[in-house]
Amino acid sequence: MKKVAIGVDIGGTNTVMGVVDESGNVLKKNTMPTETHPDYSIYMNALSAKLMIMADEIKNDHEILGIGIGAPNGNFYNGTIEFAPNLKFKGVVPVVDFIRNKFNYETILLTNDANAAAIGEMIYGGARNFKDFIMITLGTGLGSGIVVNGELVYGHDGFAGEIGHVIVDPEGRQCGCGRRGCLETYASAPGIKRTVFYLLSEMTDASILRSYSYNDLSAKKIDEAARNGDQVALAAFDFTGKMIGLKLADAIAHTSPEAIFLFGGLSQAKELIFEPVQKYMEHFLLNIYKNKVKLLPSELPPGDAAVLGSAALVWKEHKA
Amino acid sequence: MKKVAIGVDIGGTNTVMGVVDESGNVLKKNTMPTETHPDYSIYMNALSAKLMIMADEIKNDHEILGIGIGAPNGNFYNGTIEFAPNLKFKGVVPVVDFIRNKFNYETILLTNDANAAAIGEMIYGGARNFKDFIMITLGTGLGSGIVVNGELVYGHDGFAGEIGHVIVDPEGRQCGCGRRGCLETYASAPGIKRTVFYLLSEMTDASILRSYSYNDLSAKKIDEAARNGDQVALAAFDFTGKMIGLKLADAIAHTSPEAIFLFGGLSQAKELIFEPVQKYMEHFLLNIYKNKVKLLPSELPPGDAAVLGSAALVWKEHKA
Repeated sequence: MKKVAIGVDIGGTNTVMGVVDESGNVLKKNTMPTETHPDYSIYMNALSAKLMIMADEIKNDHEILGIGIGAPNGNFYNGTIEFAPNLKFKGVVPVVDFIRNKFNYETILLTNDANAAAIGEMIYGGARNFKDFIMITLGTGLGSGIVVNGELVYGHDGFAGEIGHVIVDPEGRQCGCGRRGCLETYASAPGIKRTVFYLLSEMTDASILRSYSYNDLSAKKIDEAARNGDQVALAAFDFTGKMIGLKLADAIAHTSPEAIFLFGGLSQAKELIFEPVQKYMEHFLLNIYKNKVKLLPSELPPGDAAVLGSAALVWKEHKA
Repeated sequence: MKKVAIGVDIGGTNTVMGVVDESGNVLKKNTMPTETHPDYSIYMNALSAKLMIMADEIKNDHEILGIGIGAPNGNFYNGTIEFAPNLKFKGVVPVVDFIRNKFNYETILLTNDANAAAIGEMIYGGARNFKDFIMITLGTGLGSGIVVNGELVYGHDGFAGEIGHVIVDPEGRQCGCGRRGCLETYASAPGIKRTVFYLLSEMTDASILRSYSYNDLSAKKIDEAARNGDQVALAAFDFTGKMIGLKLADAIAHTSPEAIFLFGGLSQAKELIFEPVQKYMEHFLLNIYKNKVKLLPSELPPGDAAVLGSAALVWKEHKA
């Protein structure tokens, strides 16, 4: 019987689940809304029912090794989602305990979405040959997963790897976390929008970006403008790359990784973001680290990355 | 036969060596100058001769498990000292290979001095019950050793853990490393001197510190002045604590340690430095980390810490 793992990605809007084999093929996939279930037990029952159907459909010719779950503020040690600002569930949600009561699989694991992406990169993506690397996910926020000696760093409480909340400038931009100057206030889709609005106040160059309201501007429009040579858009990418490069240089001084992977929306801007990040990262690096650390795009397919990462949690256990 | 390890600490001025038992008792100790040996092979021959004598003196009633060596810019993977700015040896010095040619011990290991201190804290000091902690050594520079899940983080090249060279301010103070604004330009014995001179330029308060030249001022004099209520000295400790606290908050967002240990000269200032570091660290921490991370003084005896840390490299292997 072919061995498979089930991956579940709990997002703010939707939950995606899929059946993944050892090579990273997604054999089945399904989706359900997350946000229409503000009560977590109703949500968990609905999720369990969907997973049950998926498992039933494949169980005759597949051995299911377990369920891996990625979620914002997911805690690996506790199997809980804890105080996730982007989910409607309040407080501490015991996801793994709930699933364990419904399913008999040996391996049922949960971690935060960026950690799941890191493990996905390690099992299925570009990090297969790296034992020390950092995964950076650039979306509506900045998530990270840090891998040291082939193992994800969870720290003593399961919350390690929050590079989105290292501080660029203690007097800097307001962050959703209640502090100021966190990296994700600069390095994320909303972050580059904020940078454009700051630059429009600073620069006098003509720019197509002067025709958008804050609400109408998107990272995609900034990308298009930059490709048309718009100076404000180009300066915004340069500034974003500087903030990321500065803090990646700090991150490297902590764990000295062989590679850093960029994943998610903003990384789709390709050379517009990779070139300034690389330039400033090298500029800010201590000599002993210079010209050593590879800056790479994620090799996970964007559409299936979340499900692959979550399923990889299970595969990591069964490969070790 | 009682098992022992030999620890060697190679410092810029002196090299200290000692025989250490499993409980951290230093049974024998010896010293030789480092700086009078600008040629590394002459130095290594002299060091080997001293170690040979020490080993001979104890070999009849002790089993020597190996030699552990701590040195600035020591590389664990290569067993080399690489481009150490504080040593007279140039380039890459193959210390472990040299020692291995003279001694038959199974375990001959080298790492940088701050990593050795971290392992010393883990084997003999206050970190015996912690699997995730960070050691910060505050001396003429700022060194660090990061422990994750009971293992020192070396990174892919052996150079992980350079928190002294994370960047507080890219336009900040000139650093010996050639860049600007590194944490150790603020958080070290020379760093707090620089802060006093900056504050003397900013503040109008009367201060005993106005009577010292830059060359005559020392961290000890700043400590004394602060204990006498000197406002400039107190402000200098507060500022130093702010810089350390800010960057420890970043470090915690990487590896989420259970404790951070402060060791070395500046940590001897006790509450003068611990209180502002604690205050600002908590201020700058992301919510999920607040009121969790213990800030602790090293429990290694200052006089023997370097030898204990180096010997602990050997004990770590034989305990695991």
